[in-house]
Amino acid sequence: MSDLAAFLAEGWAALEAASRDADDPMRLVALASLGAEGPQARFVVLRRADARAAELEVHTDSATPKVEELSADPRAALVAWSPERRLQVRATGRVGIRAGTAAEWALVPAEARVSYGTEPRPGTPIDGAYAYDKPAREERFAVLILHVEAMDLVHLPERHRRARFLRGDGFRGQWLAP
Amino acid sequence: MSDLAAFLAEGWAALEAASRDADDPMRLVALASLGAEGPQARFVVLRRADARAAELEVHTDSATPKVEELSADPRAALVAWSPERRLQVRATGRVGIRAGTAAEWALVPAEARVSYGTEPRPGTPIDGAYAYDKPAREERFAVLILHVEAMDLVHLPERHRRARFLRGDGFRGQWLAP
Repeated sequence: MSDLAAFLAEGWAALEAASRDADDPMRLVALASLGAEGPQARFVVLRRADARAAELEVHTDSATPKVEELSADPRAALVAWSPERRLQVRATGRVGIRAGTAAEWALVPAEARVSYGTEPRPGTPIDGAYAYDKPAREERFAVLILHVEAMDLVHLPERHRRARFLRGDGFRGQWLAP
Repeated sequence: MSDLAAFLAEGWAALEAASRDADDPMRLVALASLGAEGPQARFVVLRRADARAAELEVHTDSATPKVEELSADPRAALVAWSPERRLQVRATGRVGIRAGTAAEWALVPAEARVSYGTEPRPGTPIDGAYAYDKPAREERFAVLILHVEAMDLVHLPERHRRARFLRGDGFRGQWLAP
């Protein structure tokens, strides 16, 4: 395996490990989209990382502004940082949105199901801090899949390394000045 | 102080504390901008948070792609998460870019000065992982200031609270469904 291929594998391995470990700090990633007034970013939980398909998955309530933004413009960026590995992973591409399946909903812990279905919908002005309900609504469970077009890895031990990998050339990779 | 004003003060206090403490996990924030191919995001170090002026400051090499992007379109989003406080702070606005002053450069630790001046410039394709130099170049030290137009706070203890604050109404604030 070339150094570039090994570096890419390291990036995917870090994401895959984080997606399976609730205590991994890299599991919380920032997702940027384009809103009506410019870029928007928020933290989301990384639920799946698939190196082979070059896909990253997060779950959300379908009634959130981010789903509205990504429906209008699917281009997005996701960035993750691992303090232990001193590794930053940046991915850009387009987000596909679909309803979660019954099998996927079955895997959502009972206490987490209230994250899907807030009334009024998330981001709506309300009269007081707690003037909302949180029923668990399976029909509001949405799966967002970032189809990665470009991945930029920065590794920050003593000597810094950076490379960019593009789907267009089979993710062969190119070293960049860090 | 109203509950909304107290919530906003809590958000700024968290950012101010993080900007002064190298060990605070909230010091590492994601900054999203708009690139030629869509949203871009990367982690940066929060250097200053000024509640009174509603400004957030980060430092960077002026030759980075993010400076190019923000020069073309100053709209940006910054998002920070405090695991201890279970508090997410999202800020959007426009970024002003200026050269750092000699007094500011004097405060940059010697070992950090090599972050300003990489040759070839950051993001340039290079022949091998370490085919670059890192001289310390004061003339590449740039200060980015996000002039916050909107701040969205989400607090996630047992019962969630969310509010949005807009410069346009003096940051009076409005509760939102979380």
